[in-house]
Amino acid sequence: MEKMLIQENVILVTRIEAEKAEKVLARYPDAVYHEDARMIVLKKHEIPIHGKGTILVVSAGTSDIPVAKEAFITAQVMGNKVQSVFDVGVAGIHRLFRHKEMIENASVLIVAAGMEGALPSVVAGMVSRPVIAVPTSIGYGVSFGGMTALFSMLNSCSSNVAVVNIDNGFGAGYMAAMINRV
Amino acid sequence: MEKMLIQENVILVTRIEAEKAEKVLARYPDAVYHEDARMIVLKKHEIPIHGKGTILVVSAGTSDIPVAKEAFITAQVMGNKVQSVFDVGVAGIHRLFRHKEMIENASVLIVAAGMEGALPSVVAGMVSRPVIAVPTSIGYGVSFGGMTALFSMLNSCSSNVAVVNIDNGFGAGYMAAMINRV
Amino acid sequence: MEKMLIQENVILVTRIEAEKAEKVLARYPDAVYHEDARMIVLKKHEIPIHGKGTILVVSAGTSDIPVAKEAFITAQVMGNKVQSVFDVGVAGIHRLFRHKEMIENASVLIVAAGMEGALPSVVAGMVSRPVIAVPTSIGYGVSFGGMTALFSMLNSCSSNVAVVNIDNGFGAGYMAAMINRV
Amino acid sequence: MEKMLIQENVILVTRIEAEKAEKVLARYPDAVYHEDARMIVLKKHEIPIHGKGTILVVSAGTSDIPVAKEAFITAQVMGNKVQSVFDVGVAGIHRLFRHKEMIENASVLIVAAGMEGALPSVVAGMVSRPVIAVPTSIGYGVSFGGMTALFSMLNSCSSNVAVVNIDNGFGAGYMAAMINRV
Amino acid sequence: MEKMLIQENVILVTRIEAEKAEKVLARYPDAVYHEDARMIVLKKHEIPIHGKGTILVVSAGTSDIPVAKEAFITAQVMGNKVQSVFDVGVAGIHRLFRHKEMIENASVLIVAAGMEGALPSVVAGMVSRPVIAVPTSIGYGVSFGGMTALFSMLNSCSSNVAVVNIDNGFGAGYMAAMINRV
Amino acid sequence: MEKMLIQENVILVTRIEAEKAEKVLARYPDAVYHEDARMIVLKKHEIPIHGKGTILVVSAGTSDIPVAKEAFITAQVMGNKVQSVFDVGVAGIHRLFRHKEMIENASVLIVAAGMEGALPSVVAGMVSRPVIAVPTSIGYGVSFGGMTALFSMLNSCSSNVAVVNIDNGFGAGYMAAMINRV
Amino acid sequence: MEKMLIQENVILVTRIEAEKAEKVLARYPDAVYHEDARMIVLKKHEIPIHGKGTILVVSAGTSDIPVAKEAFITAQVMGNKVQSVFDVGVAGIHRLFRHKEMIENASVLIVAAGMEGALPSVVAGMVSRPVIAVPTSIGYGVSFGGMTALFSMLNSCSSNVAVVNIDNGFGAGYMAAMINRV
Amino acid sequence: MEKMLIQENVILVTRIEAEKAEKVLARYPDAVYHEDARMIVLKKHEIPIHGKGTILVVSAGTSDIPVAKEAFITAQVMGNKVQSVFDVGVAGIHRLFRHKEMIENASVLIVAAGMEGALPSVVAGMVSRPVIAVPTSIGYGVSFGGMTALFSMLNSCSSNVAVVNIDNGFGAGYMAAMINRV
Repeated sequence: MEKMLIQENVILVTRIEAEKAEKVLARYPDAVYHEDARMIVLKKHEIPIHGKGTILVVSAGTSDIPVAKEAFITAQVMGNKVQSVFDVGVAGIHRLFRHKEMIENASVLIVAAGMEGALPSVVAGMVSRPVIAVPTSIGYGVSFGGMTALFSMLNSCSSNVAVVNIDNGFGAGYMAAMINRV
Repeated sequence: MEKMLIQENVILVTRIEAEKAEKVLARYPDAVYHEDARMIVLKKHEIPIHGKGTILVVSAGTSDIPVAKEAFITAQVMGNKVQSVFDVGVAGIHRLFRHKEMIENASVLIVAAGMEGALPSVVAGMVSRPVIAVPTSIGYGVSFGGMTALFSMLNSCSSNVAVVNIDNGFGAGYMAAMINRV
Repeated sequence: MEKMLIQENVILVTRIEAEKAEKVLARYPDAVYHEDARMIVLKKHEIPIHGKGTILVVSAGTSDIPVAKEAFITAQVMGNKVQSVFDVGVAGIHRLFRHKEMIENASVLIVAAGMEGALPSVVAGMVSRPVIAVPTSIGYGVSFGGMTALFSMLNSCSSNVAVVNIDNGFGAGYMAAMINRV
Repeated sequence: MEKMLIQENVILVTRIEAEKAEKVLARYPDAVYHEDARMIVLKKHEIPIHGKGTILVVSAGTSDIPVAKEAFITAQVMGNKVQSVFDVGVAGIHRLFRHKEMIENASVLIVAAGMEGALPSVVAGMVSRPVIAVPTSIGYGVSFGGMTALFSMLNSCSSNVAVVNIDNGFGAGYMAAMINRV
Repeated sequence: MEKMLIQENVILVTRIEAEKAEKVLARYPDAVYHEDARMIVLKKHEIPIHGKGTILVVSAGTSDIPVAKEAFITAQVMGNKVQSVFDVGVAGIHRLFRHKEMIENASVLIVAAGMEGALPSVVAGMVSRPVIAVPTSIGYGVSFGGMTALFSMLNSCSSNVAVVNIDNGFGAGYMAAMINRV
Repeated sequence: MEKMLIQENVILVTRIEAEKAEKVLARYPDAVYHEDARMIVLKKHEIPIHGKGTILVVSAGTSDIPVAKEAFITAQVMGNKVQSVFDVGVAGIHRLFRHKEMIENASVLIVAAGMEGALPSVVAGMVSRPVIAVPTSIGYGVSFGGMTALFSMLNSCSSNVAVVNIDNGFGAGYMAAMINRV
Repeated sequence: MEKMLIQENVILVTRIEAEKAEKVLARYPDAVYHEDARMIVLKKHEIPIHGKGTILVVSAGTSDIPVAKEAFITAQVMGNKVQSVFDVGVAGIHRLFRHKEMIENASVLIVAAGMEGALPSVVAGMVSRPVIAVPTSIGYGVSFGGMTALFSMLNSCSSNVAVVNIDNGFGAGYMAAMINRV
Repeated sequence: MEKMLIQENVILVTRIEAEKAEKVLARYPDAVYHEDARMIVLKKHEIPIHGKGTILVVSAGTSDIPVAKEAFITAQVMGNKVQSVFDVGVAGIHRLFRHKEMIENASVLIVAAGMEGALPSVVAGMVSRPVIAVPTSIGYGVSFGGMTALFSMLNSCSSNVAVVNIDNGFGAGYMAAMINRV
């Protein structure tokens, strides 16, 4: 369990399992637990949108969704409009293209992918916007707990890509929020 | 320099630089040097096509072409019809789709890529055909001389992909020729 | 547990333990659980053979059998005639040679091996057919969970070898099936 | 040598040595060679500033300057106001604090560092702005050609940091320019 | 559990969990268990101070405290005056500077840090005293169980730093005690 | 260049290139240079055979011969009867079996191999004699300068195999000589 | 659990925990369980000594004893006179020298060590006999589960050392037995 | 070439080759070049000894001497009495013991070693003094340019050892000088 206080009126707790979360919620009835993202959010009042454009979170496979959701909620809680497109891996590239418009309208993009980590390169090639790539620890054998995805993303042939640590959905959301305020 | 005798009426020499190749050609005037593939081919007579379908060689960037060409010539010399699509990296995925028909008509595909090594996953997702992926040592920093591309390809989320050693264009062409005879 | 739908009339579930499988079978009485391969197969009706030749699955040690069986069943379910030769490691090479005829008659070969991963090179040296090598995570110390076998296979001095990810029996069977249709 | 065409009226060539650059300049007298950054810039006319705020490039040691300068010029050529603070490594942290005001006024920061790669964490802790960290291949022994700096940066305890490939000054400048337009 | 007899009148047991420790204490009622450091100390009589100056233990984050405490108690038990400054990571460098005086007055310093392992470089740059750096296994993704912190510390641009094994608080305390007697 | 004095009446110099060797020979006319093994041998008088049985040196490919020869000459100079079988790689296993008798008659065996390093396992499976395996740095891509062969050999499924450092023909010959005297 | 049948009248089972061993012993009352070596030995009748000299097993620390014992019993069961010297690590080198005579009288030596793996070099420097080095997985941090000890041993500056896989006591004993019969 | 200004009246230049050094000496006739250490020393006047005891530099092999000498001169120039014992590797441990008295009289010890890096453990076991271990990049194969020696030293079973970067003789001398002033 990791605690993180971001802004004066929001408390975020990341990587907290359901069982532990229940105990926290029993004590703080206003807190909300997001099970798919394994996060607790506790806000004093509604968070106003002050980010400039829309942040779009894209994820390659269903197993990448927890990390993608962590990024999603973090960015949202920091005052941004956030959208998502999940399960659009490169092995079925046509599924990605169905969301072309949403991709082109985003001001900042977060792309989460495990295994070969190819999705950020493809998405970044479709836009002239900053893309934050998040490798996930999804895979087996030579996925090395996310290392292969990480190195793929650092090697991206698209230049509008920067990378955060493996499974660091929180960092990706935080960085995207910083960018969306520039 | 590596020598390889493949069939009774062809001799292939791979990884031979222009300067050395010239000396070989001076002695064997019937031999042909392919500078981009760094190969010498010496055939006694024309090689008949006995492979069943067409082998297609796809490469991600211009720097991957030498490896792709090594695969191309090897497959061709082993009696196959071979076609190629070069410089269609995933950062500009629309360039790849322009060749959709050629991709769908191939019976076996060879895909060479360095850096993040994402192209084989994308291409394999477009067909129901065996894809031989060849990582190349193109890149710097965490490309690790082709290791990142290699691991990406082994982690491919497409199941119709098998991989050969880094820069092993010869092996890819040889394997594709074996497959095209099944 | 990983689910994989391959063809319209077959569902394959891989890497599923006996206990979980039982629950699935209780709900789908037509499904069959292959304990050694840790797979569930659910077919609507018999699968016709449409692969051209015979796919042969060879494995080095008894511990490699689960991965070999995963490849076996995958290839079979995809409409191929499949045979197997198990427990013929290179430390007793004469055991392999007893199956010389079966090896020479196969149209595609899958070879699973852990530890030093030497078997694919030996088998591939005996035939002029495509060999799909599957490293297994069998071993300890410097076997690195299958990495040593993987690198051995990529370094094979036989050219008719291509490799899939560690323990990826499914991928090997799938790729062999693709090849057997060319 | 790598060529990169960024915008309709600018051509950038990166990683080009003095000797080669001279030949290029002989042919294109309007081109300018920046020796410390090993870059050639060829513009048709002055580039208007359209980035929103100031991009600040910070570097740890004198040996990191070439990479830092590559980032500087790239960002500048893409239409941004760029400033720099060089040689402010963490071993003499007071030197960094002398530039506190400039750091706090930047809208996007690029921090280049080799060896232990600690500077981005320190700088990012001083601002609420996006920081692009560029590991450099400076160091010996366990610096592993920039790998240690890279991993340090990905592990940063500051959340407003994202990372590009080793020595990828171009990518850092490009990404910062993207961010400065959001 | 590791036992270590250091001096004739003290017995130290390191890396012992609470449950086991209880059993030991039941048998040796004079022993004291330090839960945060996971150590048991059993002294025959008070340990006289014979180290020359003060040893200061500095740690980056709250998660590094167990290792820091192990170093603290080891140095103390070996007859030294020991002080500590905990939770002064580089992402909030101003917190470190609040303790400037204590840092400058120490004769030997031990600095424990995980993740990017940057703290020893910063602290060592503030003094002309020997600094023993202890990497901790705190972090995830590319922290590699402390390897990134270890390599950062070995790459320190400050020359008054030497390093011990990951999580080796005992060794750091022991080495500092040796130095404080020179 | 490495010098090694083994016995009172022999001097061995290993890893010495032809050009340097010539200069040494000019000064010591009794010395002999073995170009394929890159060694100089200088004996005061003939070396009597005092090893018990025959040491057999086996090598996988032609490129492994320099290392194999270094082992051969070292063992010979230390007073052993030595035989050799070169170029019998596992991709053409029948070539190895042609030498079955010689293999079975040896008292100690040295097996040199690069690439996948599979030969020692196969040879060791044919005899009940100690086998010293020498990985060579032959190969490219994931051969990692001999690491893959080294790890393969350490993972050998034959138990009568022990391994020396990469390219350490001298060590293999020395160890075999030690064993042949037991 | 691994089973190994070595000779017609002995069965060895290695790496078997006490609980499982009990069940085996219940069925085979003649079998003996060696708890420190985690082995079961089942002999039809006494094993005659046919090894030539004495095999000496040396181990560095108390934690290396299980591996050392596995080597001891394996060599003994294969018909050798075996002696042992345990807990003589290089940090207290005088303890090793107390056993100088026993070391000098052995015909083959097995040396087990974890952590820095330095003992085989020191022991091998004291004799002109073959030394089989066994790295153990003892240690933490950068011991990498025995890798550091393994690489130390392969790098030994003594030439009469060959190495087996990490924790492979069985292999060391087996190899020593092979050598002791030459 | 690296320049380092240590104290107000001394300038040290490290890692400078003879040819370059000559040019520097031509301009600064008072400077002295130490070829074996590849260092230039330029002092305004004699350096007074203010270190408390004697610093002893020990090195394992002749190839480690350059690094050992760099440490020696650095410590000396910083105002210490320094002694040295060279070429006392662990394969001939008796050579080390000849210097027992000098070892026991030192107040701080620096031990340089490549290959298996075992010497610091042995030396540290002989004294109750701080030992600074310097791995050198001497060796081949699995010495990994000093990594094996580095990891051995960090794993030392002696607790009075701390380590600096590979080949970092300067750092070792600097750290020892810091310690000798405590």
